[in-house]
Amino acid sequence: MSAGGGAPLAGGVHGPGHLRALTAVVLDTLETAARARGGPLPAGGPDEVARRTTALAAPVLPEEGIGAEAALADLVRAVAEGAADPADPACVAHLHCPPLAVAAAAELAGAALNPSMDSWDQAPAAGVIEELTTAALARLVHPEAPAPDALITSGGTESNLVALLLARERAAAGERPLRVVTGANAHHSVHRAAWMLGLPAPTVVACHDGRIDPAALDRTLAGLGGGPVLVVATAGTTDEGRIDPLPEIARIAERYGVELHVDAAYGGPLLFSERLAPRLAGLDRAVSVTLDLHKLGWQPVAAGVLAVADTALLAPLSLRADYLNADDDTEAGLPDLLGRSVRTTRRPDALKMAVTFRALGRRGLSELVEHCVRTAEEFGRAVDARPALRRRPGAIGISTVLFRPVVADEREPEAGDAVVAEVRRTLLMDGRAVLGRAVAEDGDGRRRLWLKATLLHPAAASADLLPLLDLVTEAAERAAVAAEDADSLPAAGGTGAPATERLSP
Amino acid sequence: MSAGGGAPLAGGVHGPGHLRALTAVVLDTLETAARARGGPLPAGGPDEVARRTTALAAPVLPEEGIGAEAALADLVRAVAEGAADPADPACVAHLHCPPLAVAAAAELAGAALNPSMDSWDQAPAAGVIEELTTAALARLVHPEAPAPDALITSGGTESNLVALLLARERAAAGERPLRVVTGANAHHSVHRAAWMLGLPAPTVVACHDGRIDPAALDRTLAGLGGGPVLVVATAGTTDEGRIDPLPEIARIAERYGVELHVDAAYGGPLLFSERLAPRLAGLDRAVSVTLDLHKLGWQPVAAGVLAVADTALLAPLSLRADYLNADDDTEAGLPDLLGRSVRTTRRPDALKMAVTFRALGRRGLSELVEHCVRTAEEFGRAVDARPALRRRPGAIGISTVLFRPVVADEREPEAGDAVVAEVRRTLLMDGRAVLGRAVAEDGDGRRRLWLKATLLHPAAASADLLPLLDLVTEAAERAAVAAEDADSLPAAGGTGAPATERLSP
Repeated sequence: MSAGGGAPLAGGVHGPGHLRALTAVVLDTLETAARARGGPLPAGGPDEVARRTTALAAPVLPEEGIGAEAALADLVRAVAEGAADPADPACVAHLHCPPLAVAAAAELAGAALNPSMDSWDQAPAAGVIEELTTAALARLVHPEAPAPDALITSGGTESNLVALLLARERAAAGERPLRVVTGANAHHSVHRAAWMLGLPAPTVVACHDGRIDPAALDRTLAGLGGGPVLVVATAGTTDEGRIDPLPEIARIAERYGVELHVDAAYGGPLLFSERLAPRLAGLDRAVSVTLDLHKLGWQPVAAGVLAVADTALLAPLSLRADYLNADDDTEAGLPDLLGRSVRTTRRPDALKMAVTFRALGRRGLSELVEHCVRTAEEFGRAVDARPALRRRPGAIGISTVLFRPVVADEREPEAGDAVVAEVRRTLLMDGRAVLGRAVAEDGDGRRRLWLKATLLHPAAASADLLPLLDLVTEAAERAAVAAEDADSLPAAGGTGAPATERLSP
Repeated sequence: MSAGGGAPLAGGVHGPGHLRALTAVVLDTLETAARARGGPLPAGGPDEVARRTTALAAPVLPEEGIGAEAALADLVRAVAEGAADPADPACVAHLHCPPLAVAAAAELAGAALNPSMDSWDQAPAAGVIEELTTAALARLVHPEAPAPDALITSGGTESNLVALLLARERAAAGERPLRVVTGANAHHSVHRAAWMLGLPAPTVVACHDGRIDPAALDRTLAGLGGGPVLVVATAGTTDEGRIDPLPEIARIAERYGVELHVDAAYGGPLLFSERLAPRLAGLDRAVSVTLDLHKLGWQPVAAGVLAVADTALLAPLSLRADYLNADDDTEAGLPDLLGRSVRTTRRPDALKMAVTFRALGRRGLSELVEHCVRTAEEFGRAVDARPALRRRPGAIGISTVLFRPVVADEREPEAGDAVVAEVRRTLLMDGRAVLGRAVAEDGDGRRRLWLKATLLHPAAASADLLPLLDLVTEAAERAAVAAEDADSLPAAGGTGAPATERLSP
């Protein structure tokens, strides 16, 4: 028997046969483990999860193998019993979506064939599918542009990085370096991208009610005194789901002759809905736009996108490597895929997007997006109806609801925030709910800590979510009593401090 | 029926049931399509592949969906019929491996559960599996270090980028910026990383026989006159599979008091083999090492790793974002995963690695690595036995064999290279073989274009590979005749020029 006989491949004519046997193990194990977990995440907290996982997974690299089926059964059991599963309606902490079965199934095809998107001879058809997919997304974002384009990225962080990189290179001809100007509500990846790219730290514009204050932006741009600037606005903030006032921001940026990038990692899919797309008015005036279909697009990670208003804007990514895109090969008609990313080897992430788009159509996607937005509104009203809970005043951002137990308001600010943090941790440790946390402005202008429900489940009805409110109420009462007994709760560190702070320079 | 009823989820208790039906469509389609393709890639070239793919895939975003099963059947057929499938022994152009079925099956579990590796409450058990996996890889690379560590990355390009970023930050306290010094044989991602990070362009050290010339490195470092330097060596070059003389390079770097990073994206898995690991002697003297298990590790993309000699070296990646790792949560025992990447949302790529490691054990992995190395040696001897073919003089690099048809030698240098390029393109267009290309030094010191066979198939016997040599011989004869008839072949642009040249600054 040839070497590798004990290690069958996923590809070729025989791969599907091997995969039938092994995916059966995976799916049976996922099913059993989901029942065993019996909730949105395992009970017991980090130490208990580590103990159980290690018992099934260690040593990861033994001298002798235990075989494919045993290894899959153990490790899939470990990861599934120990998952925070966003398919459970009580798993709502983050922009962490439950993937559609159709998208996860498409991933299996990608994994089996393993096309690499950096040259035609590694991805003949996958490259075409990517091109069709990015073209459709580019037209969605910039419908009026003559030659819009889009790249597939590993997520919003890479999209923002590439957006800043492209802007840096456009500015490179001038004497002054690019300045990035962004809201206090921006994702930390904007700051991190500037740091990685060797740019000055972004200038932060004050927000009002979680959105960039246009007057403050105007003052900031006036104060910079010229030079290349990229304004970075957000359409769907991580903490609150708020959309910056894009038309005003675009108008101000145009008045100063500076460019606009919009991080629409969360909010971008509102474009699928005719009813909701107007919330993104002004988006098409951005030179580049971050989208992320592993958020409100129900894709398994990774499914990032960077849309640009014109394909010529991508020129700084051009690269020639003889082994991947020699001039004579390109002249002879082999498509050049290398300038489509800052990565080299790349997964065919467009495949699952394309399958999902074809399966559901724009209308089907629109229904799922609208479902999440509607559910959030219903959930918000349910919070308002509970005397023991208080919703953050103001509008709900896309599908994110912030609220806190009233018992937290009855304490000194710091102690109140500690109760909120403790409620979240208690529900996590008990394996009962995965709620998020966010520091956000209260009605009195003071920043307080809130529980955050990011509602991305495309099928959960608001009735499925109501038990969360009971859990929070009960946990808050217990936490308040415990806090009376002992002042030993760790202080919730976020309040008052900026929502994001990089420790390194 | 609730919204989303037409879009079932992959997770939860019911997800596996939905996935059973849909993965059956995927696997049946993969099998039928592999038979229909009937070779390593589709015949007809880019235009024909684009036509067939578009017929099955467009419009990617229709107004109304066609349903999950139909979309999967069409698009998986398109991508599989139009694949360059590395599970076919004649698909050997790149460091593009055929994934193991066990690894692809593990990907399905990751896609269904969708853990995101940036916080504990999105990946309770997956985070533990990643920690165990990176710890094992870190110990493999730096067995003597007291506290080695490793990160999971999207591939060698990101690993090299992070290595340079960490080095830049270590140098940031000083007055002079980091200088990167690397071989002419280095991967283009080293140059690209320096560009992205705002560092001076790397200083390029001459190579001899495809490997860094230690005397040239010594002269270069002497000429830099102090300041922080990162020497980047390669263990397994993309073009030739050559391993730089690591012990000499480490010694020289230590003499100058500068640091060493090794890009072992290709060669790293030699560490699994007791017999082959000595080829990487000196690797553990590097401050950081790039590995890439989607090359000689048979993982679906992405499976990148960056190993560092000490966990404290990762400090510059520390980041605090209240929603992901608030101080009070960390103090209360929630593990902080955010400083483990330059990405935020991240796939659980460690899962498939861990499953593969547990399934095969170190010994099983060693057998696969040794199989590839042995097959390349046999393939090289088979080339040597063919009068119509000539192997590049010198040692075979890991599992990469360079050769060219003798008819190409009978022509002027440029015309000879054009014959080589034409042979490769002809076999691609005919759908018969996916061979690579590389510009490399010939026995007379002149750089010529070669056909490249990167042998990563863990089960193909050398007998499976011999038909490639017949195909090349025949195609070369046809190309030579055609070249006699017309001087219209595009010139093979790579020869003489550096193997890599970035067009943008």
